[in-house]
Amino acid sequence: MILYNSAISGNCYKVRLLLAQLGLTAELRELDVVDRSNRPAVLGSLNPALRVPTLILDDGRAIAESNAILWWLGDGTEFVPADRFERAQVLQWQFFEQYDHEPNIAVARFWLLKRPDDVDPEKLAGWQAAGHRVIGAMEQHLEGREFLVGNGYTLADISLYAYTHVAPEGGISLDAYPAVRAWIERVAAQPGHIPITA
Amino acid sequence: MILYNSAISGNCYKVRLLLAQLGLTAELRELDVVDRSNRPAVLGSLNPALRVPTLILDDGRAIAESNAILWWLGDGTEFVPADRFERAQVLQWQFFEQYDHEPNIAVARFWLLKRPDDVDPEKLAGWQAAGHRVIGAMEQHLEGREFLVGNGYTLADISLYAYTHVAPEGGISLDAYPAVRAWIERVAAQPGHIPITA
Repeated sequence: MILYNSAISGNCYKVRLLLAQLGLTAELRELDVVDRSNRPAVLGSLNPALRVPTLILDDGRAIAESNAILWWLGDGTEFVPADRFERAQVLQWQFFEQYDHEPNIAVARFWLLKRPDDVDPEKLAGWQAAGHRVIGAMEQHLEGREFLVGNGYTLADISLYAYTHVAPEGGISLDAYPAVRAWIERVAAQPGHIPITA
Repeated sequence: MILYNSAISGNCYKVRLLLAQLGLTAELRELDVVDRSNRPAVLGSLNPALRVPTLILDDGRAIAESNAILWWLGDGTEFVPADRFERAQVLQWQFFEQYDHEPNIAVARFWLLKRPDDVDPEKLAGWQAAGHRVIGAMEQHLEGREFLVGNGYTLADISLYAYTHVAPEGGISLDAYPAVRAWIERVAAQPGHIPITA
């Protein structure tokens, strides 16, 4: 398999992390996340959103969207529950991640890491405030729970871990969220875990 | 089942449409989409995002996020493919919908329908331009295809239809997208189809 990748992207990290935990490998092809001028040429026929991650299967077919790739890789393994309700809960957290979490926390982090001199302070403050609301919702849910869904580590934890554990890089402190911090430690202690820098 | 609903919301319409096509019913409880002050009291223990739709099962458990609800209702029926790749493609389009499509097209439509005098013209223009890029990507994909995934109508079509067919209410004309318009007609001709106003 080939994974169109960005080292900084938490969305790509989700895929690299699950691949590692499944004992699978993919050839990484790095794409720039600031200069996107080559995206139509590289990804035009593969991904309508022209984004990384995009996974190319051995037969040449492509799958886009980080959480869809996780399901393609993970369904039928220990990382996806068999129970119908728990499967829907995994998806619920992943859609929450893409709608509420990533557009605020990942975006704040991207600007502070990549374009700190160009960021609009008012927009940054908005992303950070929304980020705190999102992590506050996770905190409330994780109080008394080990993982986001059911009793074990699932794709939901991979998806939410990716940008939550680096939220401080977006200026979003985790100091006020002890349940989230304990969950981050549990996720990082899972067999086969690799860091975002790997 | 109980569905916390908003008549205007395309996200809620997805659920009402699939329920109708599955021959299922839920008691609708309408929540206001402008005055959200009662959301914490009503949805606080049910949905970390405090949004509609939220589906309450007969045993009291809750599922949030429109596309996760569709999977809970639809997996194992004719509306979800059995093939592993096609299942991932359905999810890919649904994540694309929540990340790229809904935040632009639904938001433009919401402001023009509900708060036309208060909308920021610059933001509106941005949502509309992004909406055209998204529908352009759908147009390219649908050329020569009957439906978004495989050869049949799936959850992906329900999810993308919801806000695409009302995009003109957000000031986003579909005139330039003949493949999208033909697909809209095919979706609306499916057995058991109901309009968003039902």
